[in-house]
Amino acid sequence: MKVAIQGERGSFSEQAAHKLLAAEINLVCCASFEDLFTVVKNGKAQAGVVPIENTLAGSIHRNYDLLLESGLEITAETNLRIEHCLIGTRGARLEDIRTVLSHPVALDQCRRFFKRHRHIIARQTYDTAGAVQNVLRDGDPRVAAIAGLAAAKFFHGKVLAKNIEDNQENFTRFFALEKPHARRIKKRDSAGGRKRKTSLVFSTKNVPGALFRCLSVFALRDINLSKIESRPQHGRPWEYLFYVDLLAGVEEERTCNALRHLEEITEFLKILGCYLTV
Amino acid sequence: MKVAIQGERGSFSEQAAHKLLAAEINLVCCASFEDLFTVVKNGKAQAGVVPIENTLAGSIHRNYDLLLESGLEITAETNLRIEHCLIGTRGARLEDIRTVLSHPVALDQCRRFFKRHRHIIARQTYDTAGAVQNVLRDGDPRVAAIAGLAAAKFFHGKVLAKNIEDNQENFTRFFALEKPHARRIKKRDSAGGRKRKTSLVFSTKNVPGALFRCLSVFALRDINLSKIESRPQHGRPWEYLFYVDLLAGVEEERTCNALRHLEEITEFLKILGCYLTV
Repeated sequence: MKVAIQGERGSFSEQAAHKLLAAEINLVCCASFEDLFTVVKNGKAQAGVVPIENTLAGSIHRNYDLLLESGLEITAETNLRIEHCLIGTRGARLEDIRTVLSHPVALDQCRRFFKRHRHIIARQTYDTAGAVQNVLRDGDPRVAAIAGLAAAKFFHGKVLAKNIEDNQENFTRFFALEKPHARRIKKRDSAGGRKRKTSLVFSTKNVPGALFRCLSVFALRDINLSKIESRPQHGRPWEYLFYVDLLAGVEEERTCNALRHLEEITEFLKILGCYLTV
Repeated sequence: MKVAIQGERGSFSEQAAHKLLAAEINLVCCASFEDLFTVVKNGKAQAGVVPIENTLAGSIHRNYDLLLESGLEITAETNLRIEHCLIGTRGARLEDIRTVLSHPVALDQCRRFFKRHRHIIARQTYDTAGAVQNVLRDGDPRVAAIAGLAAAKFFHGKVLAKNIEDNQENFTRFFALEKPHARRIKKRDSAGGRKRKTSLVFSTKNVPGALFRCLSVFALRDINLSKIESRPQHGRPWEYLFYVDLLAGVEEERTCNALRHLEEITEFLKILGCYLTV
């Protein structure tokens, strides 16, 4: 099974892909999220795994836009605890490190580490695991990378410090995405009996109280929302698309009724997927 | 009057600062938004001007976080039409350009230009006007920058192409920020008789239908919302702060009633400012 991720082997995306899909997968590593969506759309990979939200940094808004543009379907979600390590070459020692490479979000989540080590300079890269790869390839014992433990293992780096993130309540939510109407990949075991979630996107009519009325279709039927996110509509300044996650499956009668009701009062409505948390 | 902006002279932020405050201002140019908020908090500038949202790229989420952390107050807003120019050295010609520097958001908004000129490489910088400054300083006629017309004028660059943005419905919304309880800077003329807007942030109690109930306090009093935005709460995974803009002033009776009602059903509530659009 071919699965597309953004970034290098050993990344958090690879960990999420194993958790979501299977222990044995062939990874297709993409340089950008745009490439990842294209690879899955073109069938060069059967599924893609993308981060959609981090509990500290917030939503990865570009991926909401790409999800809608691509027409791909969400088929599973998972949450990954993000633990950052400082990873150097095999001969490296923490006291010798002068430069640290990582993705800007990872660097930002380790501010206290940089305050404690003021002589260390942070340098941005496009990917955490890719930073480890660069450090090991270049072999300079004064340069280290911030990434997950999996990246240290994959590239045989030396872990110089563990759990250097400021805030331990650091989770990233990942989606598995597949082409609609394709034969579904069987997902890894999920907690039995748990309810499915449904993600959808809509635009309201441009009238007062429009969003309030849209949310009423769920509140009136005791359907809980776990998330609401707004994104601008291109070409329509100051108008928005709303992305909503429901704690209910599309097969439930109350959901069918709510969606029919929502259709009456929205300009645009699309179901992005109905899925289990694994 | 000292006004802090992020980036260099000649930027869209400078244009917004003049529109919001006065023709004659002393600009304090800051390298980052963090620095800008600190400079205003410490009184080294009387006001700060920050972009908060673009109609194509969406909200500048970090500035919502900084606004809440800083305790500064929104005292005016304005919208600026974003028109991108290609700006080179005095002897430059469009056909010779091989590299174009600009802020990642500006580069992203000129994708069609790069598709039409496939031999040109895009390189990211931290600021549009700063890119023009670099191009003029280095003097290489094969290198150009993407920025507004004001930057070309300020740095005496040559405009090689105008309106190279993909989408003309490209506006950025800017806030003027000042310390609360400070003597207010008199804002530039605004359209007479127009209503004020109020921005606030709240967190709901973690119960079903909580956001719906919060929005009801406005819907029940015919108060229109022009925007709603969610941001994660640090240390409380999958819980959110909601930023809301009301098309009503805090001095109106219906707003007072709505806010009192909202206080009953929220865990946290803060008014970020009540202001005119100039």
